[in-house]
Amino acid sequence: MSPLFEIQARHPSSPARLGVLRTAHGEVRTPAFVAVATRATVKALSAEDVLGVGVQLLIGNTYHLYLRPGPEAIAALGGLHRFSGWSGPWMTDSGGFQVFSLGAGKVHGVGKIASIFPGEAPPNPTGPSLVELTEEGARFRSVVDGAWIFFTPEEVIRAQRLFGADIILPLDECTSPFHDRAYTEAAMERTHRWAARALRAFADTQGLGPNPDQVLFGIVQGGAYQDLRQRSARVIKGMGFPGYAIGGSLGKSKQDMLRVIEWTVEELPEGAPRHLLGIGGVEDIVEAVRRGIDTFDCAAPTRMARNGSLLSAQEEGFRLNIKNARFRQDGSPIEEGCDCPTCRRYSRAFLHHLLRTGELSYFRLATLHNLRFMVRLMEAIRAGIAAGRTLDLDQIREGLAGKGP
Amino acid sequence: MSPLFEIQARHPSSPARLGVLRTAHGEVRTPAFVAVATRATVKALSAEDVLGVGVQLLIGNTYHLYLRPGPEAIAALGGLHRFSGWSGPWMTDSGGFQVFSLGAGKVHGVGKIASIFPGEAPPNPTGPSLVELTEEGARFRSVVDGAWIFFTPEEVIRAQRLFGADIILPLDECTSPFHDRAYTEAAMERTHRWAARALRAFADTQGLGPNPDQVLFGIVQGGAYQDLRQRSARVIKGMGFPGYAIGGSLGKSKQDMLRVIEWTVEELPEGAPRHLLGIGGVEDIVEAVRRGIDTFDCAAPTRMARNGSLLSAQEEGFRLNIKNARFRQDGSPIEEGCDCPTCRRYSRAFLHHLLRTGELSYFRLATLHNLRFMVRLMEAIRAGIAAGRTLDLDQIREGLAGKGP
Repeated sequence: MSPLFEIQARHPSSPARLGVLRTAHGEVRTPAFVAVATRATVKALSAEDVLGVGVQLLIGNTYHLYLRPGPEAIAALGGLHRFSGWSGPWMTDSGGFQVFSLGAGKVHGVGKIASIFPGEAPPNPTGPSLVELTEEGARFRSVVDGAWIFFTPEEVIRAQRLFGADIILPLDECTSPFHDRAYTEAAMERTHRWAARALRAFADTQGLGPNPDQVLFGIVQGGAYQDLRQRSARVIKGMGFPGYAIGGSLGKSKQDMLRVIEWTVEELPEGAPRHLLGIGGVEDIVEAVRRGIDTFDCAAPTRMARNGSLLSAQEEGFRLNIKNARFRQDGSPIEEGCDCPTCRRYSRAFLHHLLRTGELSYFRLATLHNLRFMVRLMEAIRAGIAAGRTLDLDQIREGLAGKGP
Repeated sequence: MSPLFEIQARHPSSPARLGVLRTAHGEVRTPAFVAVATRATVKALSAEDVLGVGVQLLIGNTYHLYLRPGPEAIAALGGLHRFSGWSGPWMTDSGGFQVFSLGAGKVHGVGKIASIFPGEAPPNPTGPSLVELTEEGARFRSVVDGAWIFFTPEEVIRAQRLFGADIILPLDECTSPFHDRAYTEAAMERTHRWAARALRAFADTQGLGPNPDQVLFGIVQGGAYQDLRQRSARVIKGMGFPGYAIGGSLGKSKQDMLRVIEWTVEELPEGAPRHLLGIGGVEDIVEAVRRGIDTFDCAAPTRMARNGSLLSAQEEGFRLNIKNARFRQDGSPIEEGCDCPTCRRYSRAFLHHLLRTGELSYFRLATLHNLRFMVRLMEAIRAGIAAGRTLDLDQIREGLAGKGP
């Protein structure tokens, strides 16, 4: 059998590399952006749409799919690939992010794990925790009907076996940037014990579900503490996972995040794929690729699209706000030279009109563009690595200008 | 120049006919269903989507497009065809329906003009009228910012010249089924005077806007009163419009509606196209085609899709409710044998899941199916006319079974 991951070229002046991630449902050219399909669909798109803009890999959410329609229903319908209509490579995350977002994320009032967080603002609760954490696992309140559900490392593996994604993840605990060192360390140690239990459960459930070729990646934790990140990377590496994900907290600034990536990547096996969970800003991706990250998932590009924030290499901050009145009679496409289905046919004025009048058509057209932008960004990054160019924002901006499929 | 409308075959046992409606932006095979694109988009779809399911003709709404983005903005962007991305045939309605829906429709608590209305229930106001009607025209409150706008027959023609749809309509007054005979007659007479003013305005604005090949249809009113409908049809016919639309009120029952159609069609020129405004139930369409109607527009099929009501010839009432729990694990398509993009790839279970979890993707997939169903329905009706079969529901149901593109 061909290897899961093959490095095909290395960047001359950084740990960046070009690779191929092989799954039973197709190959992924890395570095790659993984589109978020929380509930088995990229919001506002069909599977054909996602394929059409060149996305290679989707990530679903175990917590959300567990609640609705449930692992048994998905298995009965032939698994996630068949259920969703996306027959290419799938990942599923573990529910670990919900341990954070429904738990400490609420208590600390932190909307997202990491790098967006400027400075040392105090905790600002948005509600009580909906999660009870014990050594055994995480008890959650269902957001659907309020019922308690119990996620153990074993149950999370069983659910992901039934979903049948190609790459699955063990239950972990994302800590908050406001957790202290003692808590972060204890949570990390528990995540390590959960990882060992997940590996056993993964071996024990071989043959369960629609996809016998699943692989289980390890998740490195340890917050923004150098020695904890290094220890976590060594411990998780020692368990022999075929690939690795870096989980949050990633600290309180972009600089923290980049340091966390450097400490972690240094400890991980060179030949294994490295996934950075939940990060997807243009600059973040470029910087993380330069530090050896292969894949990224992030809901921001599709969420931004729905809010009117459209990506363009021709804009200062890589985005424009289509709600702005200056687009009301602007007959040009979102981004000159973009080859997405939206830019090929529709003007900024039309998109402005659709969003202003609340038309559903807007959400798909905007999402198609932003996802195509992310795919083109990764193509430009891969071209930059192949050519041995400096991987900086100016280079990438040039690479994106007028780039075709 | 080839004629606007050509009748290519006649049904042996009814006034139904097969025709071709020719516009500067393409031909329409009739009988045809006109998809509603109120604000220059079919809700949840792109122009490519609409083309892909075989829709031939769209109808936009003058009132809504007048408010946003406005006739001048649309003209500056090249007209409705270019603005919307739909370069096939366009109709625009006149705002006459809003005279009803924002006026008497509110005061009488009638949600829609006509045939859905069972019996003689008393008026049940849902709010004060937002319309002031005078001989000069209709003053409306803008639903966007509360500002008053003034629709005269002349202004409505000017706006539609700037939009540039292929078929446009004069300002009229839709009466309510609860208006008495005296009111209905007076409103009809005013509508006739407005029609004459619209014709003059249409001649005076030749050359204005992006589409020199527009045609203006006449609208017949007269409520559910036989002599008024006949008089209205004769008066409007006497003005020499190239095509005719039948406006509401269409009475208080389906039987009333069919009688109104019969009285009207009998008076109209045989060779001109006949459009029935705002009607689109499966049975209504079949019955109206049998009485000589050529085209129909209705928001119901797309609105029903968004609400979970999916059309199928295999269901008793031609529809199923995808929200129903019995579809949670149903791996079959909405309608066995349907060739729409949704039925070719997605199960009832997936659509049920998307709607239950509020995913935007649902709205497009459901709308694609219902619109494709309407196109297939019209294909089955045309095939029935061509073959001289009885145009009844059982025949049509058979014609729809497993019908390809």
